[in-house]
Amino acid sequence: MKTILKITVFLFCSTLIAQNTTKKDSTQLRSIYTEALTKGRSYTWLNYLSKNIGARLSGSEANKKAVTWAKTELDKLNLTKVWLQPVTVPHWERGEKEVAHIETKHGEFKVDICALGGSIATPKNGLLAEVIEVKSLKEVEELGAKVKGKIVFFNRAMPADKIETMRAYGASVDQRYSGARVAGKYGAVGAIVRSMNLKIDNYPHTGSMSYGKNAENEKIPTAAISTNGAELLSTLLEQKDKMELKFYFKQSCENLPEVESFNVIGEIKGLKYPNEIIVVGGHLDSWDLGEGSHDDGAGVVQSMEVLRIFKTLKIKPQRTIRVVLFANEEFGLSGGKAYAAEAEKKKENHIVALESDSGGFTPRGFGITSNDQNYQQVLQWKSLFEPYNIHIFAKGGGGADIGPLKKDNNVLLGLRPDSQRYFDYHHTDADVFEAVNKRELELGAATMASMLYLFDTYGIKGEK
Amino acid sequence: MKTILKITVFLFCSTLIAQNTTKKDSTQLRSIYTEALTKGRSYTWLNYLSKNIGARLSGSEANKKAVTWAKTELDKLNLTKVWLQPVTVPHWERGEKEVAHIETKHGEFKVDICALGGSIATPKNGLLAEVIEVKSLKEVEELGAKVKGKIVFFNRAMPADKIETMRAYGASVDQRYSGARVAGKYGAVGAIVRSMNLKIDNYPHTGSMSYGKNAENEKIPTAAISTNGAELLSTLLEQKDKMELKFYFKQSCENLPEVESFNVIGEIKGLKYPNEIIVVGGHLDSWDLGEGSHDDGAGVVQSMEVLRIFKTLKIKPQRTIRVVLFANEEFGLSGGKAYAAEAEKKKENHIVALESDSGGFTPRGFGITSNDQNYQQVLQWKSLFEPYNIHIFAKGGGGADIGPLKKDNNVLLGLRPDSQRYFDYHHTDADVFEAVNKRELELGAATMASMLYLFDTYGIKGEK
Repeated sequence: MKTILKITVFLFCSTLIAQNTTKKDSTQLRSIYTEALTKGRSYTWLNYLSKNIGARLSGSEANKKAVTWAKTELDKLNLTKVWLQPVTVPHWERGEKEVAHIETKHGEFKVDICALGGSIATPKNGLLAEVIEVKSLKEVEELGAKVKGKIVFFNRAMPADKIETMRAYGASVDQRYSGARVAGKYGAVGAIVRSMNLKIDNYPHTGSMSYGKNAENEKIPTAAISTNGAELLSTLLEQKDKMELKFYFKQSCENLPEVESFNVIGEIKGLKYPNEIIVVGGHLDSWDLGEGSHDDGAGVVQSMEVLRIFKTLKIKPQRTIRVVLFANEEFGLSGGKAYAAEAEKKKENHIVALESDSGGFTPRGFGITSNDQNYQQVLQWKSLFEPYNIHIFAKGGGGADIGPLKKDNNVLLGLRPDSQRYFDYHHTDADVFEAVNKRELELGAATMASMLYLFDTYGIKGEK
Repeated sequence: MKTILKITVFLFCSTLIAQNTTKKDSTQLRSIYTEALTKGRSYTWLNYLSKNIGARLSGSEANKKAVTWAKTELDKLNLTKVWLQPVTVPHWERGEKEVAHIETKHGEFKVDICALGGSIATPKNGLLAEVIEVKSLKEVEELGAKVKGKIVFFNRAMPADKIETMRAYGASVDQRYSGARVAGKYGAVGAIVRSMNLKIDNYPHTGSMSYGKNAENEKIPTAAISTNGAELLSTLLEQKDKMELKFYFKQSCENLPEVESFNVIGEIKGLKYPNEIIVVGGHLDSWDLGEGSHDDGAGVVQSMEVLRIFKTLKIKPQRTIRVVLFANEEFGLSGGKAYAAEAEKKKENHIVALESDSGGFTPRGFGITSNDQNYQQVLQWKSLFEPYNIHIFAKGGGGADIGPLKKDNNVLLGLRPDSQRYFDYHHTDADVFEAVNKRELELGAATMASMLYLFDTYGIKGEK
């Protein structure tokens, strides 16, 4: 009887505690969302970063300015500590605006291109050659010596039937990253790649490429062509011989010696478990086109906003909450790698890392890389997010910068915003402040802060 | 033993059937989404409707053009039948572009306004008066005679902390609809209303208003002021006496005699239950600013696309699928009311009606008005929509035009797109084709077609 009474009392108390916790959590989440939507600072920060600093490619003067600005703003938040971690980054410059046209016996058709990041220049007066259109790297391998002396035109469109545009990107971006490497191996003189864009418009989309282990004479200039340009070129190529079609392009980009940049880091020390570190971040560098507002200005200001919200709402974290604004994501992840190496050296215990690097659109949920126990814990919090229309709690995902922090027992998360518009802007002149909606940005920041509040409160499973 | 065997066989077969049905359904949904995203026609239609016809306020020439265009396009789809239903609609005209400024002894500050739909004009040379700022209709009631001879300025902002912007609209729009009626009762000479906009910008947002049963001399001119203008006016009003502040506005709008418009209707007759009618629709009219692309060009072309998809994929509906492009939603729901009255007269059995009238943004789910049995049926289909990130199946909702079709036993649905950007465009010059993303629009059409495919396949509960 006594035992039954004990169990009953225990169950009753547990239920009470569970209910209180849930009530407290849902109240806290509501405060976080209200703060972000009514007094948020992310949009103002993004305005400054976009308009007063702008594009901030690794190695550029603007990149240095961005580091100084970010540190200054974090200093103002009255965190426990703010510091810079030096990182060696590549330095590539686009040079003069690229020029390109399709040359035919009936005249020239101007098209919009931009050099791909890491590409070499064309000869000073440009490059004119016949074109061979392909849809895959494999097709080039099969053509072999037939591409010799030609410009290879990679024209496989992003598949529009994918629901998540990131998957459509994943299904196509090999052409951009490896097109020049493969074509160069077989003696092609240039590689033109259809932009990673689901729309048909005039924006060329830059992005990283690699020559891999190609010999010097196998390195060929490569550029992205707008989807409009790609459609025109492909159509005209159907009459290639009749039209005596050739492609001309000129670019003066160059790879310069590496320089120093910085990860910008700030933290609120945890009260109870200061050695358990929870990271939130985005990358401070961007491509050199547009203003890098979605990629990844949004992730930067949302991450800063998470710590501001904690401070403003007087949430005193039990664990250490650290914001990391990573150097050079776009050009080889130097910042993410350097950060993880330092953490390893200092034997720091990173229990959770959350990255926002998919644009400042309405948040839909998270991608989660963790063991099953921790994944189940996140699923238990799902109902807390329902009032905010956060539904996706998908297995897998995280972020490029936080990837190197992966351990058997920790949790990596990527914010999953709505992906439909991302490739309208990605790596182009169109990625500007005006393309970001204030509320969508703020909802993302609130969603990130809420998730980290929960991890801070409950920790992760099987780790102390 | 025999019985057990029978039961076992029965259960086994039921399971098989259930599985096959689900498999068939998920395959069908995948085909619908692929068709919409790769060969969809909604975006091309919207381009034409926006750019070649444009704003199409009830009673305007453009509204007539829109009716002709819609009928012509439906005729091309090879439906069972396409027809026009005459509807009497109001005819209000804005007249010349409105002018407004804040007058002070230090000079004039120009602000952006637009007359509210249904408002009377100011005197020919405009109206100049002192301003009294209020936050609610109730405050005017309390002020009573103190508003006499003044312009009442309704300045309660939409609450930014609401997650769904439609709720923020619902919490504020009484000022626009009833502000002039209430202020006019107490002798005010004009009413200026803060635009229904969560952003701070220069777009005034029009929309309907009503004088209710006010006497002629209690009808006062009313306009919306941009949020930027409202903020300025409110700030300057803090120094009202010192600045000798007055507000000036001039508008020449007028209410003209009613005219004839049409509901544009097309249907595919059901093979098995032709008398069970499933309606999909949006409204063909729009405000006279911008191009009415989100409101409700998107709903119009998505509804047309549903029938096109059925035809193209050779889905032969068991029930009758009918598209209705409603006349005059914006100005009193004449089309919706006329349609329901006709249905009543003909004793037509409308089992399901689905409306899209919340913008062409990424679809998130549905609002559902039905009895519990039918609501539970929709919930059973939820998992079919998960691959398409459709998660919201909320009780309540539908659409203004289909509202009059409500019966005890039928189902009304409203498509629920992401709402964050809707009030950036709603009823303004900014509601143009360029503000609509192709994929977001197409995903909405596919989601609508998928839901109606399921209702066509399974019918509703308790109705034959």
